Amino acid sequence: MTHPLRLGIAGLGTVGIGVVKIVKQQAALLAARTGREITISAISARTRDKDRGVSLSRFAWEDDPVALATRDDVDVFVELMGGSDGPAKAATEAAIAAGKDVVTANKAMLALHGQALAEAAEAAGRVIRYEAAVAGGIPVIKALTEGLAANRITRVMGVMNGTCNYILTRMEATGQGYNTLFEEAHKLGYLEADPNLDVGGIDAGHKLALLSSIAFGTRVDFDGIELEGIQRVSLDDIRHAADMGYKIKLLGVAQMTGRGLEQRMSPCLVPAGSPLGQLDGGTNMVVIEGDAVGQIVMRGPGAGEGPTASAVMADVCDIARGFRLPVFGQPASTLTAAQRAQSVLPAPYYLRMILRDKPGALAKVAAILGNAGVSIHRMRQYDHVDDKAPVLIVTHKTTRAALDEALTAISATDVVTDAPVALRIETV
Amino acid sequence: MTHPLRLGIAGLGTVGIGVVKIVKQQAALLAARTGREITISAISARTRDKDRGVSLSRFAWEDDPVALATRDDVDVFVELMGGSDGPAKAATEAAIAAGKDVVTANKAMLALHGQALAEAAEAAGRVIRYEAAVAGGIPVIKALTEGLAANRITRVMGVMNGTCNYILTRMEATGQGYNTLFEEAHKLGYLEADPNLDVGGIDAGHKLALLSSIAFGTRVDFDGIELEGIQRVSLDDIRHAADMGYKIKLLGVAQMTGRGLEQRMSPCLVPAGSPLGQLDGGTNMVVIEGDAVGQIVMRGPGAGEGPTASAVMADVCDIARGFRLPVFGQPASTLTAAQRAQSVLPAPYYLRMILRDKPGALAKVAAILGNAGVSIHRMRQYDHVDDKAPVLIVTHKTTRAALDEALTAISATDVVTDAPVALRIETV
Repeated sequence: MTHPLRLGIAGLGTVGIGVVKIVKQQAALLAARTGREITISAISARTRDKDRGVSLSRFAWEDDPVALATRDDVDVFVELMGGSDGPAKAATEAAIAAGKDVVTANKAMLALHGQALAEAAEAAGRVIRYEAAVAGGIPVIKALTEGLAANRITRVMGVMNGTCNYILTRMEATGQGYNTLFEEAHKLGYLEADPNLDVGGIDAGHKLALLSSIAFGTRVDFDGIELEGIQRVSLDDIRHAADMGYKIKLLGVAQMTGRGLEQRMSPCLVPAGSPLGQLDGGTNMVVIEGDAVGQIVMRGPGAGEGPTASAVMADVCDIARGFRLPVFGQPASTLTAAQRAQSVLPAPYYLRMILRDKPGALAKVAAILGNAGVSIHRMRQYDHVDDKAPVLIVTHKTTRAALDEALTAISATDVVTDAPVALRIETV
Repeated sequence: MTHPLRLGIAGLGTVGIGVVKIVKQQAALLAARTGREITISAISARTRDKDRGVSLSRFAWEDDPVALATRDDVDVFVELMGGSDGPAKAATEAAIAAGKDVVTANKAMLALHGQALAEAAEAAGRVIRYEAAVAGGIPVIKALTEGLAANRITRVMGVMNGTCNYILTRMEATGQGYNTLFEEAHKLGYLEADPNLDVGGIDAGHKLALLSSIAFGTRVDFDGIELEGIQRVSLDDIRHAADMGYKIKLLGVAQMTGRGLEQRMSPCLVPAGSPLGQLDGGTNMVVIEGDAVGQIVMRGPGAGEGPTASAVMADVCDIARGFRLPVFGQPASTLTAAQRAQSVLPAPYYLRMILRDKPGALAKVAAILGNAGVSIHRMRQYDHVDDKAPVLIVTHKTTRAALDEALTAISATDVVTDAPVALRIETV
């Protein structure tokens, strides 16, 4: 057995403490599996004096994460502070410069600075690992970089924000509206300090940007994601989608098209009977499609002490075993700039509009859709209430451009009360 | 870039040809991802002159797989012949002795000779990789050995024989009996040359034995599996299970109990709404439960050219990247002999029996169950037809021993027509 692999852990929140517990409690198992002892040399957090439910007295303390990251007795800097910039980034850069490997759960930092950090790490012969940054305990980065390495990836999809999925599935189950369930999620501690990271789709977008880069060999391009949160998903849409056999999910999709990389994170309809449609509550799911393998679906807990620490420690075990690979699965210098292609791929859409009770109202809508080249697959009109009738339409595949043209024209008529709602239906 | 990694491929059936295609068609992608060129030096198969739809003229030919495995220009011996003994084993042993790494899809060989092969490989400093041997394209060996390496695994379950799952789901969908759908599967080419490998649960049992060993650090123990095929699953059971909210699956379960390792491969009931219950057709699913991560579910194609070749090539990529780990995730010398524990864990059971129309018949059955300590959770009696009434019972958790005692006593009465059917209900 070679000398121990020594960790320096910055950030002692839920995940950091979970990592400490695994290192302490599973020492024999980890040594048997990796052939090396794994130890903790030093720790760092914002507050030192705090009962964290586990004894930390045997580890050196550093107030400054940069000092921790560069200690001589640290082989791997474990960054669990979070935040895209500030101390997390400074300490990560310092760790690389000091010749340390890095394991992090920080999706924001990598989604925004991944290319520069990868280039620095690879120039220094160091690795940055981040299994815990995407889909919690699901070993999806490993599946993509290694398990499916012989595939040309064609599409990656995922429900990767448990809080959003919790809110959406609770809306359907309880019939309560978005605002009520947002409050419920807040009380349960499910929301980030800035809730927009969750419900605005940003957190899930960070994860998608990382998966895209690995899948398609492109530089991480968070800004290239067409991003829409769940704030505007109404109870009506959830109910009506269910009537038509669909569920609404905050779904991330990355797909290489003939015109470039399409990345979307938005509320989509998926078939109620599909694995994505059946995903309830805080669980995450990632779907990977490759030319050889077909479709692989992975499901598991997307957050929490145990699952996230499990992923962090998987990365540590790989480093202990001497498994070293480039940050995004191929050298950062070979990653190409992603050509952005937004809504290039045609898709079916779900449309909901409120029709006024006028003669020929529906005919007018149908004619506008037809003129724009949008053909109707299924349509359902409900009873008029106060002279207003909800109309649901599922279109055949259409481009977003054609659809937008039709929706603008429909909104300009006097037969609908508001702008129609349009949600993409993702084929799974 | 270091020198190319040179493969010698024995077996040019569906999977072998799939591997050749990937090496040829994805050369650039593989080199970008692994940092090495991957080439094929030589090939071997039973018949040389046969149109396999891909040009093989640039590869050296060997009639004898042992000669192929030991060639100087071969770094990795890719064993895709199959068969637990004979040429596959001889060539694998020769490859190891000659200092080659081995990649194989051969579950039977490893399930029966895994310990000896692993010891030989590790003594020689060689690796044997077999992602393709379990659950086709799903990177489940990697998930277990690496992605979840920091977990004490508590249970592994899986539907790992697509043919059985195809037959069972078609029975439910079409209302046709086992024999009819066995013939259908046969005509479609879904069955092994010896169909008992599929429908007898042996093939799936081989896979379970490999997963058990990795999960629990025990020597592979195929003979320790409580094995039952799907031949006796009746249409009545499928229908009645559905009435009670369950599906019948050929389910493998490996679990470490206080009294040893319990390994079962048998038709079980699972909740219809669970991921396992919703798995239709030839798709495979593996469920892994660990103390830190909770439950991870992986789903994907369990067979076929592309998926299986994808898994073979993932192992080749790992070798190209220099990732080396023991055959069962920890050194073969540290694996412990599995203490066999059969049906130790209590479980709920589904019982079906045909009751004669006699006064007090049901009371008698209930009394016998009660006396054996088996309590009834749900019961449903159907109408009598010709003085016979089907009765379905879902029990609370009970030991198999208590249940068997009750079933023997029930069979000995004059109130049932045949021995009751008993199927375990697996909690998922």
